[in-house]
Amino acid sequence: MSIVVHHLENSRSQRILWLLEELEMPYEVARYERNKQTMLAPPELRRVHPLGKSPVITDSSSASQAGPRVVAETGAIIEYLVEKADGKLGAPAHREDTLRYRHFMHYAEGSLMPPLLVKLVLTRVPLFGKAAQKRIQPMIDTHLDWIETELATRPWFAGDSFTAADIMMSFPLEA
Amino acid sequence: MSIVVHHLENSRSQRILWLLEELEMPYEVARYERNKQTMLAPPELRRVHPLGKSPVITDSSSASQAGPRVVAETGAIIEYLVEKADGKLGAPAHREDTLRYRHFMHYAEGSLMPPLLVKLVLTRVPLFGKAAQKRIQPMIDTHLDWIETELATRPWFAGDSFTAADIMMSFPLEA
Repeated sequence: MSIVVHHLENSRSQRILWLLEELEMPYEVARYERNKQTMLAPPELRRVHPLGKSPVITDSSSASQAGPRVVAETGAIIEYLVEKADGKLGAPAHREDTLRYRHFMHYAEGSLMPPLLVKLVLTRVPLFGKAAQKRIQPMIDTHLDWIETELATRPWFAGDSFTAADIMMSFPLEA
Repeated sequence: MSIVVHHLENSRSQRILWLLEELEMPYEVARYERNKQTMLAPPELRRVHPLGKSPVITDSSSASQAGPRVVAETGAIIEYLVEKADGKLGAPAHREDTLRYRHFMHYAEGSLMPPLLVKLVLTRVPLFGKAAQKRIQPMIDTHLDWIETELATRPWFAGDSFTAADIMMSFPLEA
């Protein structure tokens, strides 16, 4: 099995697993548990990638002297796997769809996740966290309204067909 | 002038302006001021793009019946402009450099910005915000240490030459 998905519990690997399934690409999962006290990733994951973040994949079919290729960062992993699958689920042929594909590939983490993350963090801050949360909600609502308007005009984020952009967008939308 | 950069004060347009300068691509800047009370973008910017976010560019050389093409989201705008410039400052020819280029194009907003943003938000939450800030700092330090290690091995983020990935990374690093 050339692809290994290094999966840290309660992290963002789901999108990568989903994409691999859709691409019908064989893979293995290496599981890592967080330190119970600190909730940090274990040292083993840091040996795969110094940031100790998940998702990260290794691809032994593309190895160098230093070992199997390591690819980190959801967006970059998705681009890597789509390329490996000869473009399957990647940017559509239609120009407008390609531009939308690219937009959502960046929008998911660049614009939609930040207010969701801030809200999540504020839920854990006693007292004034709650008040601050209220100020972030209108921003989230604007995003959700816009997404709804977009999906009212076509079945998938890029256009008429399901692409990796839909997978990219799934995590913040679940959150 | 076909490209217009819609610039909201105190927002993230700097990277786009820098890229346009490096690409020697002519452009105009349309400036927008935030509402003094709410700090929100003015309605004029929402007429350019419903999210009312900056940066957003319009390109009248690629217009449709609906008007000039609108491109939003920093990463997507960068990819759009690099493509328009026939790949100048885009993914390098060398495979390893291309993978690094892609990684940093996603890493900037996907991994580096979130803890910086959370820290910034927490500075504004009275009382427990400060304590919460302390817990986020080690995460930021891990990123900064890793970036330093990376840049110790080569002059630019992707490899031997300056690319749009360096511009993409500039904003979180300044922050």
